[in-house]
Amino acid sequence: MVDYKESGVDIQEGERAVSLMKSEVRKTFNDRVLSDLGHFGGLYRADFPRMECPVLVASTDGVGTKLKVASMAGDFSTVGADLVNHCVNDILVQGASPLFFLDYIACGTLSAGTAASIVTGMARACLENHCVLLGGETAEMPGFYSPGDYDVAGTIVGVVDRKRIIDGSRVQAGHGIVGLPSTGLHTNGYSLARRVLLEVAGYSLCSEPSELSGSTLGESLLAVHRSYLQAVLPLLETGLCSGMAHITGGGIPGNLGRILPSGLGAVMSGEWPVPPIFDLIARKGAIEPGEMRRAFNMGAGFLLVTPEPGVVMGVLAENGEKPFLAGEVVSGHGVCFREETQ
Amino acid sequence: MVDYKESGVDIQEGERAVSLMKSEVRKTFNDRVLSDLGHFGGLYRADFPRMECPVLVASTDGVGTKLKVASMAGDFSTVGADLVNHCVNDILVQGASPLFFLDYIACGTLSAGTAASIVTGMARACLENHCVLLGGETAEMPGFYSPGDYDVAGTIVGVVDRKRIIDGSRVQAGHGIVGLPSTGLHTNGYSLARRVLLEVAGYSLCSEPSELSGSTLGESLLAVHRSYLQAVLPLLETGLCSGMAHITGGGIPGNLGRILPSGLGAVMSGEWPVPPIFDLIARKGAIEPGEMRRAFNMGAGFLLVTPEPGVVMGVLAENGEKPFLAGEVVSGHGVCFREETQ
Repeated sequence: MVDYKESGVDIQEGERAVSLMKSEVRKTFNDRVLSDLGHFGGLYRADFPRMECPVLVASTDGVGTKLKVASMAGDFSTVGADLVNHCVNDILVQGASPLFFLDYIACGTLSAGTAASIVTGMARACLENHCVLLGGETAEMPGFYSPGDYDVAGTIVGVVDRKRIIDGSRVQAGHGIVGLPSTGLHTNGYSLARRVLLEVAGYSLCSEPSELSGSTLGESLLAVHRSYLQAVLPLLETGLCSGMAHITGGGIPGNLGRILPSGLGAVMSGEWPVPPIFDLIARKGAIEPGEMRRAFNMGAGFLLVTPEPGVVMGVLAENGEKPFLAGEVVSGHGVCFREETQ
Repeated sequence: MVDYKESGVDIQEGERAVSLMKSEVRKTFNDRVLSDLGHFGGLYRADFPRMECPVLVASTDGVGTKLKVASMAGDFSTVGADLVNHCVNDILVQGASPLFFLDYIACGTLSAGTAASIVTGMARACLENHCVLLGGETAEMPGFYSPGDYDVAGTIVGVVDRKRIIDGSRVQAGHGIVGLPSTGLHTNGYSLARRVLLEVAGYSLCSEPSELSGSTLGESLLAVHRSYLQAVLPLLETGLCSGMAHITGGGIPGNLGRILPSGLGAVMSGEWPVPPIFDLIARKGAIEPGEMRRAFNMGAGFLLVTPEPGVVMGVLAENGEKPFLAGEVVSGHGVCFREETQ
């Protein structure tokens, strides 16, 4: 006789996971939420009385192979924040503030504690970003994932008034490009980083290469992908930003390039603090600068294009940030780095 | 020297996938979409002038291990529709019509053709359900998935006017429960079904057990999870439905149970056509009826609770459906099947 548990799906463990994460998820609810947990769909009131023409902005993303590092370290407490913050930043570039988030977690054999650890991390990050964790799906898929591996993805929905949408169309030659520091790799380039550091260089997550000034490799690689919402929020209604880019897969060339109107390019100074983990990867993997810049954020996690870089940097600095002038918009095409042009 | 491709991530193959799926995705766009492909987030106009109090309804789901069957069959053309229809049904039970959908596809080694096949299936199903395919993420994660395996998940956002929300609170003892046929397993119970049919019984996907009347096992297992939107839409504004349930993981007991108010239970007749694949699984696996009903939909893919079952069945039949009287709401607790009570 065969039953569901024998086939690899443990319904009781799934129910245990839900009961462990319930209270953390409920803390993210506000008076716009009209449903409790366990409904088929999550209900969210969509009247936006202070907006002329509300526009929803939605984005889906995953954590990528940073999850392999979390699995190796046996610590899934930070990947939830990585994902929520990544999604928050992805819609922030269009001027949107988050409304709600839904998660997807998949694994081969479900551990209620691990799933709850992931979701608790998401819930706390949602709370920090004033975002409701409205729903989610935890899938136990026997044979799909190695033991201890989890895939984690999520979808965010935010809102922006139509007249406040930032889409790069107002970007002009001469605008400055202001950068905000990243905390490390964020959630991109981990396949390359793991290959170089853990295979070619032979490090373990406990290694403490001198370049990392006392941090272990595991700590550096699991540094949380930060949210830029609180830093950028005061700028959204000023009209000062003509474009914004979240530097994810594709690096600065790929992501800044996405928002520049036709006929415009960017010259980057390349003169900002680059976290030591990037130099370590480049050196150990003998990776060329151009390849590094397409795979990694190189210390610039978020870029703001503006006709008033001085004012924007002032607002950001007042907000406790350490902004830097990262480059300038020019007539032309593509994104280049100053040392390449000399 | 290490580069990104050598580490297992092929950016060019990803770009090729996007170019293959672009035109199918764009076909789903309508005049509410304010963004093109390639932006950080998808933009969707959220003014609903015909609604008093618009409420967004959102749900995330995956395809589960039906994907293993697709992978074995080398055919990913149907899993996209499975997922979209599943999500459409999940928010339909609360009275919501779909607005937009976002997908997440993850694999170990990306084939542009396979990713495009999955997304094309999603785009066509979105079009049938008047739903925009607003965005998505395709993640190549070396070392995470076996060659040929893809995980696929998605998030749907729909809308319902607050006064039209169907949440089961109006369900009363004596209400009838009308069922609509499923096309097969839909997207639930595949770990159990694969264990029984492909391992215990030793079938292959090409096997043609006599019970399946000429269909192969692969065809039966990959039958598309249907959408109930067109069938149920004419009923949404009538107020005739006090509750609805989409029968997914947990079966009728788990999903009908979710919408019954405290103090109410349901007695199911169990007298409706059960597709032969379920009998085959039960017999080959010697699975007890109670376990079958918790793992599978048993031929009832969608249930409508109503004070007027005759009228509801008439409307559905006029719409080309084959509804059946599946049971009745009673005072009590839990969901039982008539033969169990005799």
